[in-house]
Amino acid sequence: MPFGYNGRILRVNLTNQTFEVEEPDEIFYRTYFGGRNFIAYYLLNELKPSIDPLEPDNKLIFATGVLTGAPTGGTGRNSVGAKSPLTGLYGEAEAGGFFGSELKKAGFDALIIEGKAVKPVYLWIKDGQVEFKDATHLWGKKVACADKQIKAELNDKLIRTALIGPGGEKLVRFACILNDIVHAYGRTGMGAVMGSKNLKGVAVRGRGKVEYANRQKLAAIAKWLIDNVDSYCGWAKFAGTPGSLLGHNAAGGLPTRNYSSGYFEKAEEISGEKMHATILVGRDTCFACPVRCKQVVEVKEPYQVDRIYGGPEYETLAAFGSLCGVSDLKAIAKANELCNANSLDTISAGAAVAFAMDCFEHGIITTADTEGLDLKFGNAGAMLELVQQITDRQGLGAILAEGVEKAAQTFGKGAEKLAVHVKGQPLPFHDGRLKQGTGLGYALSPTGADHNHNMLDDFYAPGGFGMGEMTALGILEPLATNCLDHRKVRMYTYHTMWKSLLNCFGLCMFMPYSYQQQAELVQAVTGWNTSTWELAKVGERSINLTRIFNLREGMTAKDDTLPPRLFEVPIGDKGYVVEPEQLQLAIKTYYAMMGWDEEGRPTLAKLQELGIEWAGDFL
Amino acid sequence: MPFGYNGRILRVNLTNQTFEVEEPDEIFYRTYFGGRNFIAYYLLNELKPSIDPLEPDNKLIFATGVLTGAPTGGTGRNSVGAKSPLTGLYGEAEAGGFFGSELKKAGFDALIIEGKAVKPVYLWIKDGQVEFKDATHLWGKKVACADKQIKAELNDKLIRTALIGPGGEKLVRFACILNDIVHAYGRTGMGAVMGSKNLKGVAVRGRGKVEYANRQKLAAIAKWLIDNVDSYCGWAKFAGTPGSLLGHNAAGGLPTRNYSSGYFEKAEEISGEKMHATILVGRDTCFACPVRCKQVVEVKEPYQVDRIYGGPEYETLAAFGSLCGVSDLKAIAKANELCNANSLDTISAGAAVAFAMDCFEHGIITTADTEGLDLKFGNAGAMLELVQQITDRQGLGAILAEGVEKAAQTFGKGAEKLAVHVKGQPLPFHDGRLKQGTGLGYALSPTGADHNHNMLDDFYAPGGFGMGEMTALGILEPLATNCLDHRKVRMYTYHTMWKSLLNCFGLCMFMPYSYQQQAELVQAVTGWNTSTWELAKVGERSINLTRIFNLREGMTAKDDTLPPRLFEVPIGDKGYVVEPEQLQLAIKTYYAMMGWDEEGRPTLAKLQELGIEWAGDFL
Repeated sequence: MPFGYNGRILRVNLTNQTFEVEEPDEIFYRTYFGGRNFIAYYLLNELKPSIDPLEPDNKLIFATGVLTGAPTGGTGRNSVGAKSPLTGLYGEAEAGGFFGSELKKAGFDALIIEGKAVKPVYLWIKDGQVEFKDATHLWGKKVACADKQIKAELNDKLIRTALIGPGGEKLVRFACILNDIVHAYGRTGMGAVMGSKNLKGVAVRGRGKVEYANRQKLAAIAKWLIDNVDSYCGWAKFAGTPGSLLGHNAAGGLPTRNYSSGYFEKAEEISGEKMHATILVGRDTCFACPVRCKQVVEVKEPYQVDRIYGGPEYETLAAFGSLCGVSDLKAIAKANELCNANSLDTISAGAAVAFAMDCFEHGIITTADTEGLDLKFGNAGAMLELVQQITDRQGLGAILAEGVEKAAQTFGKGAEKLAVHVKGQPLPFHDGRLKQGTGLGYALSPTGADHNHNMLDDFYAPGGFGMGEMTALGILEPLATNCLDHRKVRMYTYHTMWKSLLNCFGLCMFMPYSYQQQAELVQAVTGWNTSTWELAKVGERSINLTRIFNLREGMTAKDDTLPPRLFEVPIGDKGYVVEPEQLQLAIKTYYAMMGWDEEGRPTLAKLQELGIEWAGDFL
Repeated sequence: MPFGYNGRILRVNLTNQTFEVEEPDEIFYRTYFGGRNFIAYYLLNELKPSIDPLEPDNKLIFATGVLTGAPTGGTGRNSVGAKSPLTGLYGEAEAGGFFGSELKKAGFDALIIEGKAVKPVYLWIKDGQVEFKDATHLWGKKVACADKQIKAELNDKLIRTALIGPGGEKLVRFACILNDIVHAYGRTGMGAVMGSKNLKGVAVRGRGKVEYANRQKLAAIAKWLIDNVDSYCGWAKFAGTPGSLLGHNAAGGLPTRNYSSGYFEKAEEISGEKMHATILVGRDTCFACPVRCKQVVEVKEPYQVDRIYGGPEYETLAAFGSLCGVSDLKAIAKANELCNANSLDTISAGAAVAFAMDCFEHGIITTADTEGLDLKFGNAGAMLELVQQITDRQGLGAILAEGVEKAAQTFGKGAEKLAVHVKGQPLPFHDGRLKQGTGLGYALSPTGADHNHNMLDDFYAPGGFGMGEMTALGILEPLATNCLDHRKVRMYTYHTMWKSLLNCFGLCMFMPYSYQQQAELVQAVTGWNTSTWELAKVGERSINLTRIFNLREGMTAKDDTLPPRLFEVPIGDKGYVVEPEQLQLAIKTYYAMMGWDEEGRPTLAKLQELGIEWAGDFL
C-alpha cells in the first residue's frame, strides 16, 4: 500500500445490498493518482456503452485524490462521477468540504456505487464498515433536514454527508450532490444519478489515519501556507469568489441576460462588496484550509434565507443575478438556498431560468406556457418560483428540469439559438468571448462547458512550464484575453493538463503552492520522487481517458464547439465575439498538440506514451 | 542579460577577418538554453540548403550551455556543430574539458565561425577581444605541438585551445577537434570543417566572471556532489568508462571483429582493469569536476605513447581492440595517441580499420589494394599503419578517410553489407542488438549513430518521469535490454528529450544529480523558476530543430534505419538480432509520440507547442 492512500476501494451494490473491497496495486495509484483518473478508469472499463445514465447500469463513483485529506490547506477536494444525465457523456463534479477527507479516514480511497436500491436508502460508512440504511423517511426531505436527521439517528455529530434533496430525487438532469449541506458537487447532474439509484446519500465517519512518507515535510508545507496565505489569498479572505464580480463587469465580461451582454448596469447591487456589507454573517472553509473563502449569509425579509445553506459564490451571483437581469441580492441568496436545499446546480439552474426568460422575451414562450408567470428579465419573484417548479418538475419547470438543450428542442421556434450550453451543459460565467482561452476550454472540456479546468486567461500560463514566468518577468508579452491563436492554444494545452491534475490530486485550484511545491507535497505524502513532467502527464492521462469515454458514447469533433450566442452577439467596448473559423483552427491545433488525430481521437501512440494503451481498445 | 550567460555571441568571418558581437534577448536564452539548440538554431536559419559541408558557406559553431562553467562538477561540457562532411546532415559533437568554460569566462556564450581564411590562421580570443593569428607555421603540426607553440607565442600557459592536427587539415571526413589535446569533439567530422576553413584552431583565455542568481545555492550543490561522488561515481573513480568493457563482453554485447560478434575472447587483455594494472599513469578531469574519470597512459615499448595525449576511453578500447580483433593494449593506446595527435575520431577511425579488415577477410579487397598490408583481424601493426594512412590520405587510407559509407561504395562487391553505420556515421560500441533501445537511438539520432543521447538500456528510464522510479522501486518490471516494444519507445522518447537537454545545459551525462537537482542547478544559475516539464521541452526543441535541418537536407524516413549486420548477425547466448519490422514499428511509434507525421516530419502544431513555429518554414 503506497503512502498517502488506504490502498482500498469500496464497491457497493445497491441492488443486492452487498459490498466488497478492492486493493489495486501501486502501479494503479501511481498511474492515476485519483479523482478524474480513477473515475474515468472505472467508467471506461465497467460501463457498457450507450446506457441510459438514469438506469441502474450507471455507476456513481466518489473518488479522492492522492492529496485529499493530507494535513495542509487545499486538500479537501474530491470528485464524484458517472455517465452524465445532462450531457450523455462523461459526467463528473468536484467539491471541497470534508467529505473526501472523511472517506479517506474511513479507510477508502474511492467508493463505487452500482445498481439501484428497491426503496430509498442511504449508505453508512464507518471505519471500514458499510451499512445500507433505510431512507424512506428521508425521501423528499431537504438536504439540511436529512443531514440533521442522519446525524441524530446515528448519534454522531461528526458524521460527514453527501446528500441529495428533492431535485435529485426527481431526477432533475442538473441536480447536484451536496456534502455537509453547502459543498456542491455541482455539475453534470450527479444528483440525478444518485436519485435514480434510490440513494439519498452517503454518511461517512472515519477515525483512521493514512500514513504519510514525510510528516515533517508536510508540516513545513502547511506552515508555509499559513505564513503566506494573506499575501496570496487576500482576495479570498476578503470576499471569496464574489469579490471578482465587479472586475468581470468592468472588463465587459459579466454574462448578463442570458449572455446577450457582458455588462450589467446594476452589478454593484449583486457584488461581493455589497454582500459583505449587508447579508454576510460568517465565513466557512474546507478541510485543513486557512483561506476560508466561503460565504455564509442570512436574510430575514422579504425572504427567509437560512444560514445553514451557506451563501452564493461568484458563479451563483452571476447565474441568478446578471444572467437573469436580477439585481436583488436577497433574491439571489434565496435562489442559492433553494438550490442547495433541493440539490440543484446553481449554474445550470440559473442558466435554465435565464434561458426561459430569454425565450419569454423573444415570444418563444408566453404566459400560456408559464401559467401566468411574467418571465421578464429582472423579475426576481418569477425566478424563485421557477426554481421551485424545476425542483418539483411542475409546469414549465418540468421542461426546464431536462436542461436547456432538451428544453430548447421542446420549445422549438429557434429557441436553440438562445440555449447557451456545450454538449448540453450550460456555460459558467467566465465569458468565452472576452476570455477566449476559457471559451476554448468550454468547447473542449469532457464534461461540457466547465470552468474548473480551463480558466486560463485570468492567470499567467503555468509558471513552471516556462511561458508563464517569461510573461511574468516581462520577457514574453502577455497574451490578450481575447487572443485565440496557437500561443493561446499552447497555454491552454499545458494549463488543462495541470488543472486536470489538480482534480486527480484532490487539490484546490486557489492554493498558492507553486508547481514545484505541489511536486514536493506529493513527495511528502507518497515518498515518490516525482516531477512536474510526471505530474503533467497524470493530468494528460485523465484528459485522454475522459475523451475516449465520450468518443465511445458517440461524441464527435462536431460537438467541440460553442453556442451561437458567443459567435453572434458581441460584448465589451471592443465588441468581442468568438470567430468560428478561429475557434475551429484552435481546436484542430489543440488536437494535434495533444497527439490526437484530426477528428480529435487519441492515437494509439499517444496512449502508449501515457502508459494507458488499454484505453485504445475502446476507440 | 540573464544570469548564467554573458548575453553575447561572437560571430567571426574568416574570409574578411572581421568579427561582431550579437546580443540575443532573454527569450532566446530561455527558449534554447545552449548547446545543440543554439547550433541548430543558427544552422537552420543561416545555412543555405544543400551546401557542400567543406565549402566556406558552412559555419562552425562552438556553443556553451546555460550550465557550462558554473562552479560545480559536470559543467565542462560544450558542443561544436556544422553541417557534417561525414553524414551531409546536422553535424555536432560535444566534449568536456575546459575550453567551454574558458570561452564563457572570455565573455561569449557561443562562437560562430564563417567563411574561409586565405591561409592558415588560428583565432585568439581573450577577454572579449578577437585576433586572427597566422598559423602557417602550425599547419601540419600535431595537436600537442601546436598547443604548446600557441601557448608559447602568446606567452600564457593558461590558454585553452581547440585544435586540429593533420587529419583535420587533410579533410578526413571523420576528423575531430581536440580541446586541450585530450578532450575530443569526436563525431561527425567537425575537424574537417575546421580544416576546410584553413583554421588550425581557437585559443581562448578569459578572466571574466559570469554572474549567477544564487551563488550560495550553487555552492551547496557543488558540496553535495563532492560529498556524494564516491557512492555515485565509484566506477568512474576506479576505471572510468574502460571499467565497463568486461561487462559488455560478459553480456555478449562487446562489438567484435566489425560487429560480427558480441564476444571477444581476449577481452581481459584490453579491459580497464588491465589498463589500470599496466599502462595507467594518471587520471585527468574536466572543469570543476571531482570525478576524474579520464585516463592517462604511457607506453615506452614497443611503441612510444606520450602521456600528453591522455588514454583510451571504453569506446576507443572497443574501436581499436575488439572491433579490430586486436588484444594488444599498448597498440590500442598508440592508436589513441595517433588519433588525438592527428585529430581523428577514434570511433570512426577504428570502425574504418575494422571495416577494411572485414573487407580484406571477405576478399573484397586484397593485398593489391592494401599495398601489401596484411589486414587480417587482430593485426595490430597493420591497424596502426592504416590509421597513419588515413591521416595522410595515402594508399587505402585515402579511401577510408571518406568514411565507411563512401569507402564501401568505392570497394563495391557487397562491401556495403559490411559498412556498419547510420547515415554515414559508424556505430559506437553499445551493441544495438543487445541494447535495442540504444539501437533505436542509433537509427533516429540526428547525427547518425550516436550514443551520447540514446544510451538508455543500461539505465532506468528517467526517474523523475515516473516510469524509471516505478521500475527502481520494483513496481514496474524492468524492460529487457533486447525489448523494443512501445514501452521501450516511450522510455526512449522521454530519455532522449532529457539527454538532448544535457547537451543544451552543457552538463555531463555521468553526473549523479537527480532531475530535480538539475532544475535547481538551472535555477541557482539563472534565477529562472523552471521545472522538469520546461526542461524536457528544451531538449525536445533541439530534437525537432535538428530533425528539420536534416529533412531540409533531403533526409527521409528511409534513412532512419540500422545497418544490415544488426539485422542479420545474431549475438549473445540468445542470438539477438534487431527484427526489421519491429524496428520500423518502433520508429513509426516514436514519430507519433513525438507529434511527427508518418514520414517523421514535425507537425506545425508540435512546433507551435514548442514555441518554434518559425522552424516550420523550413519544412
